[in-house]
Amino acid sequence: MSRKMKNTKNYSIPGFLFGSVSCGIKNRKDDLAIIYAEQPATAAAIFTTNRLKAAPVLLGMDRIKKGVCQALLLNSGHANAMTGSEGEKAAKATTLAIARNLKIPPSLVIPSSTGLIGGKFPAEKITKALPRLVSTLSPGGAKKAAGAIITTDKFVKIASRKIKIGGKTGTVRAIGKGAGMINPNMATMLCFVLTDVKISKSFAAKTLREAAGTSFNRIIVDGEMSTNDSVFLLSSGAAENKTISSASPDGRRFSKAVSEVCFDIAQMIVQDGEGATKVARIEVEGAKNVADADKAARAVGNSLLVKCALFGEDPNFGRIASAAGASGVKFNPAKLDIWIDKLKVVSRGKETQNAEKKAAKLMKKSEFTIKIRFSEGKAKAFVLASDLSLDYVRLNSEYRS
Amino acid sequence: MSRKMKNTKNYSIPGFLFGSVSCGIKNRKDDLAIIYAEQPATAAAIFTTNRLKAAPVLLGMDRIKKGVCQALLLNSGHANAMTGSEGEKAAKATTLAIARNLKIPPSLVIPSSTGLIGGKFPAEKITKALPRLVSTLSPGGAKKAAGAIITTDKFVKIASRKIKIGGKTGTVRAIGKGAGMINPNMATMLCFVLTDVKISKSFAAKTLREAAGTSFNRIIVDGEMSTNDSVFLLSSGAAENKTISSASPDGRRFSKAVSEVCFDIAQMIVQDGEGATKVARIEVEGAKNVADADKAARAVGNSLLVKCALFGEDPNFGRIASAAGASGVKFNPAKLDIWIDKLKVVSRGKETQNAEKKAAKLMKKSEFTIKIRFSEGKAKAFVLASDLSLDYVRLNSEYRS
Repeated sequence: MSRKMKNTKNYSIPGFLFGSVSCGIKNRKDDLAIIYAEQPATAAAIFTTNRLKAAPVLLGMDRIKKGVCQALLLNSGHANAMTGSEGEKAAKATTLAIARNLKIPPSLVIPSSTGLIGGKFPAEKITKALPRLVSTLSPGGAKKAAGAIITTDKFVKIASRKIKIGGKTGTVRAIGKGAGMINPNMATMLCFVLTDVKISKSFAAKTLREAAGTSFNRIIVDGEMSTNDSVFLLSSGAAENKTISSASPDGRRFSKAVSEVCFDIAQMIVQDGEGATKVARIEVEGAKNVADADKAARAVGNSLLVKCALFGEDPNFGRIASAAGASGVKFNPAKLDIWIDKLKVVSRGKETQNAEKKAAKLMKKSEFTIKIRFSEGKAKAFVLASDLSLDYVRLNSEYRS
Repeated sequence: MSRKMKNTKNYSIPGFLFGSVSCGIKNRKDDLAIIYAEQPATAAAIFTTNRLKAAPVLLGMDRIKKGVCQALLLNSGHANAMTGSEGEKAAKATTLAIARNLKIPPSLVIPSSTGLIGGKFPAEKITKALPRLVSTLSPGGAKKAAGAIITTDKFVKIASRKIKIGGKTGTVRAIGKGAGMINPNMATMLCFVLTDVKISKSFAAKTLREAAGTSFNRIIVDGEMSTNDSVFLLSSGAAENKTISSASPDGRRFSKAVSEVCFDIAQMIVQDGEGATKVARIEVEGAKNVADADKAARAVGNSLLVKCALFGEDPNFGRIASAAGASGVKFNPAKLDIWIDKLKVVSRGKETQNAEKKAAKLMKKSEFTIKIRFSEGKAKAFVLASDLSLDYVRLNSEYRS
């Protein structure tokens, strides 16, 4: 995985076309994109659990039920959230309009929006730009489309794997966006996993759920949950392999590739977290059960004081231990061990001697691991967390323009 | 309640003496204090639920069981947390030493420490200073003692009420400290409620529990929980009223006074929150039950994006609604109403027209209310929350000196 994408790569995936234009929601920048499957694609999706679901999420939840999708109509600059019944009408209207342009049923189109919450959704601007958008459709437009859905992201996020399926080579690519934020004028997390590998609907849903569990559900920038978070998996089936419907060797290879591209995108989102200067992998092991391990890892990753210590490159082990202690997980403090990378900094509940100076050096790196070990059992879990920087506060306290 | 304490006030409470000195944990500043009851006082306490309890908390939890306490030995500059069995020995040794000085049983002494987590607890410095500390004991030393327990607090926190109990006048005073932080080099929350009103042990415990529920358990600076948080209620009984043991009219007046001084101290802690520039009272009403109301209020008060919006004086209603939506509480978004003070800014899930400009003005005040109304039931709850400022990150990311 590299942050820098080679310009020569076109990121094509057999069976898919991509388009993008500026429709005027954001000033002159591309803000409207389409992912189009030449044939109806097998599809699965996961959406935000926020009670305040944006209009496109509500429509997408309904339309994905059939397990088929042919076009994803994407816009940045406006989230179409907190827009009431008008927003819902607008989401429907724009998908109807693109369906007409593409000559496909509107039920096979799912919209996805990201940007400002509230205000009037600029449906007219989008509708007006659709013929132009359709005219840009090409197999090589993935990267440009990825650029049209970013908001405050500092870089475009694409991850890819090639896999052998039967005698054929299949492609799994993910296009993501997000700087870990949820909110007005900021990125919300979206990810579109596209493949030419033929899979069944139920296998698509299972694979995506598992991949999200080890990627997007493991990252913490600011503990916020969007009104628009959505992750899609679409299969064009153009690889013409025998349809995968179970965890056969082919199925396992495919699921692994999906998990890996999702993890890559998730990691890029944390790296690109608003104001983030550090990514800490927080591992908890020796917990009584996975729920405990998970709870403790999340508590440490969400701790404001830990995040400030990460930003300050301050080996403040008391904060890490205290956040774990406040997580609600039961453990014996006298058996608590903590490591920064391979350096043991807390042993049996007490700071190890002379660890501080060495740990401070390790924390100067942009990525490192904080490992916390209880001695209560064998369960483990991890999260990827960014730090809390001055720029985070600056970016999010400035008045919306 | 006023932030400024009159210097002429001595804050005496019949039956109690106060002392304070510098013992050298902090440079030259007073860092050691004692609250001494001339007779063994009826006592109750509440301690942090963090798994990593500091040594003085562990000792205090044990000693408070009898419901009697005669001396509180307080120090700032070192929390005596993550100090292992050595720390526990040190906590015992210092209380034994002060007991000898005061000629009382060590079981009637409870220590309370605040400051740096980890490192060696400076028991010798404390023990050495005890004769000097005892020599400063006086009825009028409360304010000076309050000054010795603050750490990063910008102001000393004392709150008082006079009440009529039978034909007599009773005093309830609270001495608090805290800037909402939990951690190395920072304030942890401590509060000592002192009264001359005679009360039973069980009534003391009940009154304190209820008071904490509407004060210290309602404030959010950074969602962190200390290893040292402790709240005490001590009654000298010097008012010589008939012992209160139930919610009689006298009992209710007394409980109200305790709740009020605790709320005053809690409010001062939020106002003094690290880097805080705003205090928002976040009210949730119309919830299905109190647990839901509480959960939603806490989610909004803990939201980094809401806190950044408070700091930026940005009427970003989407963030408030989204945080409530992400809280896990079930409600109908189409019936969500939000107010800033008396200005309705969200009506039935949508921003009200022209509210933004007026709301921006209201948010320039240092204190205001955010009211969120579900239409699911009649339950309500509130929290007091500070904002997230650049100074918070600055203060907490700088390397410990």
